[in-house]
Amino acid sequence: MDKKNVAVVGAKGWAARELIAILIRHPGVNLALLADKLDKPETVTENFPEFRGLANLPIEPADVEKINAAADIIFLALPHKVAQSYAAPFFHKGKIVLDLSADFRFEDISLYEKTYGITHQEKELNSQAVYGLPELYREKIRQARLVGCPGCYPTSIILACAPLMKTHLVRLDSIIADSKSGVSGAGRAPTPITHYVSCNESIRAYSVATHRHTPEVEEKLSRLAGEKVIVQFTPHLTPMDRGILSTVYIDMTKDAEEKEIHDLYDAFYKTEPFVRILPEGELPATKTVAFTNFCDIGMKLDKRTRRLIVVSAIDNLIKGASGQAVQCMNIIIGVDERSGLIS
Amino acid sequence: MDKKNVAVVGAKGWAARELIAILIRHPGVNLALLADKLDKPETVTENFPEFRGLANLPIEPADVEKINAAADIIFLALPHKVAQSYAAPFFHKGKIVLDLSADFRFEDISLYEKTYGITHQEKELNSQAVYGLPELYREKIRQARLVGCPGCYPTSIILACAPLMKTHLVRLDSIIADSKSGVSGAGRAPTPITHYVSCNESIRAYSVATHRHTPEVEEKLSRLAGEKVIVQFTPHLTPMDRGILSTVYIDMTKDAEEKEIHDLYDAFYKTEPFVRILPEGELPATKTVAFTNFCDIGMKLDKRTRRLIVVSAIDNLIKGASGQAVQCMNIIIGVDERSGLIS
Amino acid sequence: MDKKNVAVVGAKGWAARELIAILIRHPGVNLALLADKLDKPETVTENFPEFRGLANLPIEPADVEKINAAADIIFLALPHKVAQSYAAPFFHKGKIVLDLSADFRFEDISLYEKTYGITHQEKELNSQAVYGLPELYREKIRQARLVGCPGCYPTSIILACAPLMKTHLVRLDSIIADSKSGVSGAGRAPTPITHYVSCNESIRAYSVATHRHTPEVEEKLSRLAGEKVIVQFTPHLTPMDRGILSTVYIDMTKDAEEKEIHDLYDAFYKTEPFVRILPEGELPATKTVAFTNFCDIGMKLDKRTRRLIVVSAIDNLIKGASGQAVQCMNIIIGVDERSGLIS
Amino acid sequence: MDKKNVAVVGAKGWAARELIAILIRHPGVNLALLADKLDKPETVTENFPEFRGLANLPIEPADVEKINAAADIIFLALPHKVAQSYAAPFFHKGKIVLDLSADFRFEDISLYEKTYGITHQEKELNSQAVYGLPELYREKIRQARLVGCPGCYPTSIILACAPLMKTHLVRLDSIIADSKSGVSGAGRAPTPITHYVSCNESIRAYSVATHRHTPEVEEKLSRLAGEKVIVQFTPHLTPMDRGILSTVYIDMTKDAEEKEIHDLYDAFYKTEPFVRILPEGELPATKTVAFTNFCDIGMKLDKRTRRLIVVSAIDNLIKGASGQAVQCMNIIIGVDERSGLIS
Repeated sequence: MDKKNVAVVGAKGWAARELIAILIRHPGVNLALLADKLDKPETVTENFPEFRGLANLPIEPADVEKINAAADIIFLALPHKVAQSYAAPFFHKGKIVLDLSADFRFEDISLYEKTYGITHQEKELNSQAVYGLPELYREKIRQARLVGCPGCYPTSIILACAPLMKTHLVRLDSIIADSKSGVSGAGRAPTPITHYVSCNESIRAYSVATHRHTPEVEEKLSRLAGEKVIVQFTPHLTPMDRGILSTVYIDMTKDAEEKEIHDLYDAFYKTEPFVRILPEGELPATKTVAFTNFCDIGMKLDKRTRRLIVVSAIDNLIKGASGQAVQCMNIIIGVDERSGLIS
Repeated sequence: MDKKNVAVVGAKGWAARELIAILIRHPGVNLALLADKLDKPETVTENFPEFRGLANLPIEPADVEKINAAADIIFLALPHKVAQSYAAPFFHKGKIVLDLSADFRFEDISLYEKTYGITHQEKELNSQAVYGLPELYREKIRQARLVGCPGCYPTSIILACAPLMKTHLVRLDSIIADSKSGVSGAGRAPTPITHYVSCNESIRAYSVATHRHTPEVEEKLSRLAGEKVIVQFTPHLTPMDRGILSTVYIDMTKDAEEKEIHDLYDAFYKTEPFVRILPEGELPATKTVAFTNFCDIGMKLDKRTRRLIVVSAIDNLIKGASGQAVQCMNIIIGVDERSGLIS
Repeated sequence: MDKKNVAVVGAKGWAARELIAILIRHPGVNLALLADKLDKPETVTENFPEFRGLANLPIEPADVEKINAAADIIFLALPHKVAQSYAAPFFHKGKIVLDLSADFRFEDISLYEKTYGITHQEKELNSQAVYGLPELYREKIRQARLVGCPGCYPTSIILACAPLMKTHLVRLDSIIADSKSGVSGAGRAPTPITHYVSCNESIRAYSVATHRHTPEVEEKLSRLAGEKVIVQFTPHLTPMDRGILSTVYIDMTKDAEEKEIHDLYDAFYKTEPFVRILPEGELPATKTVAFTNFCDIGMKLDKRTRRLIVVSAIDNLIKGASGQAVQCMNIIIGVDERSGLIS
Repeated sequence: MDKKNVAVVGAKGWAARELIAILIRHPGVNLALLADKLDKPETVTENFPEFRGLANLPIEPADVEKINAAADIIFLALPHKVAQSYAAPFFHKGKIVLDLSADFRFEDISLYEKTYGITHQEKELNSQAVYGLPELYREKIRQARLVGCPGCYPTSIILACAPLMKTHLVRLDSIIADSKSGVSGAGRAPTPITHYVSCNESIRAYSVATHRHTPEVEEKLSRLAGEKVIVQFTPHLTPMDRGILSTVYIDMTKDAEEKEIHDLYDAFYKTEPFVRILPEGELPATKTVAFTNFCDIGMKLDKRTRRLIVVSAIDNLIKGASGQAVQCMNIIIGVDERSGLIS
């Protein structure tokens, strides 16, 4: 089979770094072009010295025509708002566009606009986008040409909650997701917050009750449940490079046995290549999934409080961003869903 | 004023390390003796090289008579069950005993026995013990000669919840405490779990729904509320040396303004030397309280979910253990409560 | 081409972990058997939960006959002394044996015996072993059936020095190698030294002037130089999981230009797939080579002191252990030397 | 005794943070004023939330007259070049000035100018400055009113070498100092280099053969030796908050016994309150001196290579900056040299 040509636009951030790492190893694609908002070209290695000898492409000033000429598939690793302006010219040329920003994640465009405080410039395009979470949207992704890839926190929370949404076993307004993220989640820009001496030996909560990923999670879980789901989401910054651990609390509507819940998760994710339900009694750790596309999930039913605690772990840069985008791409182009991600 | 002579029994662990660090700087006491379960004496510096030139006492094999002869005040930094056997002979000689283990933390001895799976050998003694949390028990501590110092997690959770307990503003069965601890909380013994390569770059939950600190927290909060309080407690292991951040979720019973809650906390802790209520909109970080006896508390009222999120931060080894024990001692011996802890 | 069957004996340590990670992805081999000194089988996942769904072999009690029946190629990830007793029965059955211990690294068996303080039980076998550093011994490795894979520190130091050995540009008795290692180099056993709280936020030197890797480095460099090379080696323990940075100081015998030295390194490693000579003016970092089989090398000539400073970086578990062993295997079985290590 | 009033100019960096921490606990001084180059005042707590309730001074726009009016003693924690312009107006008003920058560290002003690439604007003032290393310059410091406090690396290297300089036991042109620093040494400004994800899990060398601290070290050691000393200095960035470990290599001129060298160090630092010579066979770790003003020194004589390896450890922010400045102040104002630094 001919290899597809792929481009990464927004090639200087950490999600891009992971994309490059995956794509240069991917047997079904050819990494044809890297671009970013630049005045003049830079080398990959001056941005990511780890790719010396592995990826010798330049990172070019983003030129839509040139990208359209070079690539069949385009990954956008750009900030929200910027991403939407790039998506259209690629999409309209028939390209497959995988957007890692928030711009095409929402079905309800007014919710997007309220959450991000801007007017969406590509509403028509948005209506053609599919949410890039294969475990829930695989068949739609297969048909899609524009994928709005989920945020890192939403991936960890939605996968932790999804099997319960239609069961009537839990109170859909009771979900609390307490998430802990590594520092790469804060982006590559040097800020007082990402300074080593600020992060190291410290843990803190931020954006309590106001984080933008909350509406994203609620929209997807509500759609799945068929009724309004309310999520209390609290992100924390943790002294590690990568990883998200989400500890999710959900009130039960009735008594149940842990095994029953565990079986339900097992069944729900039975055929998923990247979700691992841990054996009963085991709980995940971020290190176990670091540098992988896996989401590990464990759970504990507390009969005393009649509350279920589900814990999920992902690598925020892979299953929470780039790996998941590649998984979506694999589905669209019809190769083994694990290509470039396992092997 | 004459300096009191103090001894530390169980001088080789990390709580003991902090006790020594505080006591050698404390203007009101003389660190007279260090002891542990040993066959022969060891030096402080072979156990804690940082004390070279600062504390040149031996760590002696624990000999009750010798300790009674040497000290007026005895800190027990021993495992639970072991601690209770040491407390009696000191107490009965009229000494002041500050126990850092779980052995004298419970009013309800049967709850202790159920939680720790052992029979308490000193039930009479336990009835004379006071819970060593000055913010709630200061007057009782002042009269006490046996103090059961709180666990590290309970300190962070109880202080985060206490101002609400009598207000009828919150649902007392809805408390969820999601706590994140540094590795020193796991003790000094080398285990697969405390190995650097296991902890580093990883976060995990443990003892979900079963941690022994849950009944301790519930007993104290219930006593304060005057009715049964139920707490869902989830501890996490985090890659840092020290610190606990507790993110506490509590359902409101009615609408309120954040300022109202904030004022309530301000008023509750107004005169406390070691509780700092952060300005509205600010949240604590463990690094800010590291190596101090402070408990920093911030909060956010989420009107949308009608839930209050309170975040507290302490140093698990100081306000969560040794510093708090010294604070109790200061109250008992009548010196400035901050002696040895500030300045 | 038929896939070769490989076994790993000593499958519970960290070098084994990396071997498993590489071998399950290696296109030319089949990971047929895992064994260790055990009473009864264990699962891979109870030892390494990250391999859930990726490697479902048991780790079996090491049984020589069974291993011989199952595998063509055997990796020994055992302690020195233990390894030599296992190597013989595999070698004599015609297997390819890649030993990661020190047992077959020395040409001078008396130097081995002096260094490790034991009598070598397989002297005849040792004479058939080749030192598994492809950059210097590739042709011998190609013919070998027993490979003594280099230690992690020696790999980083020898590669940093090798291009100079025959040039007469440097004083061969002046080499100082100041190396900094991540904690995984200290092994998986929990000890006071590997406790998180001991390692974190600390750096220390150890085994100064006495580390066992010194004679290994000196033997190999001396052989290369054709005269006696003396190395002052100082290892340090650094708070990170993996990586070795060696800063090597060498006195020049005459004036030179940095470019001349740099060209010399470029030429020496020109065709090497896993050595990257950085551009002039750049120096390596361990993070850049983490999780790879690369050795990155940079240098600076200080004309003022007439001293050359060469800095090399490797991943101690990969180029310093398992990756290098697989690289040797690739050479022996005649597949692309990068198989399983890139792509 | 009346407390002296002290001011800190340049109050927003990490050295200032440590100064504040020490000065608010110091029994002999009153922290009267904090200033920095600002347009309008800021609070201490918005810069350093850890000082909530401990230091409630504003950080004011630096106003020379106001500072002169408020303080007897002024600490300058400013960048080099900026510091010299502030020193003069304080000095000429008779104040005691402790400068933490490089501006008054050099006796040879042309060496300063060459090293820092600028013209010194206060040459006359510089001639009145004393180098603030009490172990070597105590008597001069006692008479001084302007102290140029040593850099962090120089402190660790000079203290490691000083006892040898006049002994003729070592080759004075053979010194190699391989130093490893925590990230706080890189300053508080957020840069790509100080980003958590850049530093964490990585070690790297920088400024090899060109670091500005080299001439400072050489000037002081040469003065001590009475002849030219040449030092090869290589700094490394290490993933920890604070600490410098310097591993110093020195060729012996003749055979010696380790004990002889050890006794020499013991004797040299016998009465020093902040230098701890470790027992023979022990080596320092940065964690042991973290948050203290101690310099711990250990050594190993390698008879085989006839080389001495001396290892020193300091906290770069305390003995390497603020603690040392306070130690100098204590000497000048005639209080116990340990005031504010121990106890």
